[in-house]
Amino acid sequence: MFREKIKVFDCTIRDGGLINNHNFDDKFVREVYKALSEAGVDYMEVGYKNSKRLFSPKDFGKWKFCEDSDIEKVVSGIKSKTKISVMVDVDRVDIEDIKPKKESPVDMIRVASYVKDIDKAIFLVNHFADKGYETTVNIMAISRALDNELTEALNQLEKESRAQVIYIVDSFGALYQETTEFLVKKFQGILKTKEIGMHAHNNQQLAFSNTIEAIIHNANFVDGTVYGLGRAAGNCPLELLIGFLKNPKFDIRPILDLISKEFIPLRGKIEWGYIIPYAITGMLDEHPKSAIALRNGDKKESYREFYESLLGEDLD
Amino acid sequence: MFREKIKVFDCTIRDGGLINNHNFDDKFVREVYKALSEAGVDYMEVGYKNSKRLFSPKDFGKWKFCEDSDIEKVVSGIKSKTKISVMVDVDRVDIEDIKPKKESPVDMIRVASYVKDIDKAIFLVNHFADKGYETTVNIMAISRALDNELTEALNQLEKESRAQVIYIVDSFGALYQETTEFLVKKFQGILKTKEIGMHAHNNQQLAFSNTIEAIIHNANFVDGTVYGLGRAAGNCPLELLIGFLKNPKFDIRPILDLISKEFIPLRGKIEWGYIIPYAITGMLDEHPKSAIALRNGDKKESYREFYESLLGEDLD
Repeated sequence: MFREKIKVFDCTIRDGGLINNHNFDDKFVREVYKALSEAGVDYMEVGYKNSKRLFSPKDFGKWKFCEDSDIEKVVSGIKSKTKISVMVDVDRVDIEDIKPKKESPVDMIRVASYVKDIDKAIFLVNHFADKGYETTVNIMAISRALDNELTEALNQLEKESRAQVIYIVDSFGALYQETTEFLVKKFQGILKTKEIGMHAHNNQQLAFSNTIEAIIHNANFVDGTVYGLGRAAGNCPLELLIGFLKNPKFDIRPILDLISKEFIPLRGKIEWGYIIPYAITGMLDEHPKSAIALRNGDKKESYREFYESLLGEDLD
Repeated sequence: MFREKIKVFDCTIRDGGLINNHNFDDKFVREVYKALSEAGVDYMEVGYKNSKRLFSPKDFGKWKFCEDSDIEKVVSGIKSKTKISVMVDVDRVDIEDIKPKKESPVDMIRVASYVKDIDKAIFLVNHFADKGYETTVNIMAISRALDNELTEALNQLEKESRAQVIYIVDSFGALYQETTEFLVKKFQGILKTKEIGMHAHNNQQLAFSNTIEAIIHNANFVDGTVYGLGRAAGNCPLELLIGFLKNPKFDIRPILDLISKEFIPLRGKIEWGYIIPYAITGMLDEHPKSAIALRNGDKKESYREFYESLLGEDLD
């Protein structure tokens, strides 16, 4: 038996773009879109709508900006029911860049926000809803949110925002299933008119199980990426999610082909996945940036020293 | 807060030996024992007590036989509270090879058995208990066990066996957390005088989360291996387990050093971990042998073909 309301949301190109400055070539993005379409995946996120006044197109690939014309190029001619999403960061978007939905190939806009920026996120998401898009608010770094502040943010989202989905984002890969259960139930207790989403990172090999945990407690939007691609430890592997879900509309085979042909060679060029320094930042509930720096240096396997350096940050 | 009864059981050398015909050299095994001892791990399993009449020492390393003298060599001179375990397979052991506990460096003997062989397992485990060892029965391929047969086996184990611990062994890496919960509760409902153990395989990146799930529902013996080493997809990574458990007696740092120095180089020589064909056998609840054969051949990345070959086995 399956739950028809569950939507599988792929963010391979968007989250993977954080590793390579969004420099995926068109052929690769088309191959991903084609495979996801054949597999029956509901959404594909291609990148960010970041402001070109804040970030130079010389320094980043096109998927940091996601011009409508660039999206049209990679989806044209492919038969698909897969909807297109882009992500927007609070304070990094020019809202006048976003055309009305009916003039754009984009179906959904997701606003990524910390709890503290929730007022800005609500402003943005309502603006995009007014323009005709499906919308979500993705609450980042949830493992660090204070309960009273999270409660207030969720109450605001319920009362003031037109977002259809509110996401739990385990940015640090720090959640265990008991806390995932707690958060999904908390979200549902307040967000009576919204769906709940889950975006998990894989630092402790818990992205898939936390996503299952969220599904068990009735989250209906679940994120994954092909072969777990994503910054640092990466994300919930989409192929495992498809293998778990029972909806006959999904077909894992195009994803298997895509991994064979595109992702095994890619893994030889860029690094992501279960790597000890990312596991350490996950278990210590830290941003992975220190581990990313370690992996780019010449002491990349000095795990004990790295672990002790994180313990050594004195506070009072 | 921690649960003092939880015992962490390392089976790196035993399960890892299934990849390399038990050919770890003494220096490597000593390094593992030393690190586990410093980390406060409760048990270390070094291999199998297999019969030399059935398996030739020419074809296998010493850790398939685990002579007491070989064990003494690798533990001597190392200060440790870590107990030594060996595994015995039904029908593959000569019980006269096992000396009384007081003459042996071995503390625990674990009997691996399918449900169908439970009478033989009970005979063996009671024999080893008579000789003074701590004992367990590890029920393999649990995801394939029929409920009525499993119930009968558990009733027998409770009434007839002197094993202290009965393990759930997810040999195929097929369990999700809901079934893990169901099984742990089922075991506890019948095994009133025994502890419950969990040995998980990592085909679907669920070994760690299923082990946490078992802990949540009061399993107290939990298996892991350093860096997840083990046949095919490998096991629950011991370092993640240590990071999760709150008992201050555990120290993750010796394990981090061990991974840096010994396991990163080893991973360049032998293969284990998250590899798509093992994920496929996990999601289809199949023995990994077909995937192991695939990885040893020249079509190792032909995932779709492999997937379809497993679907194509007709039955009536």
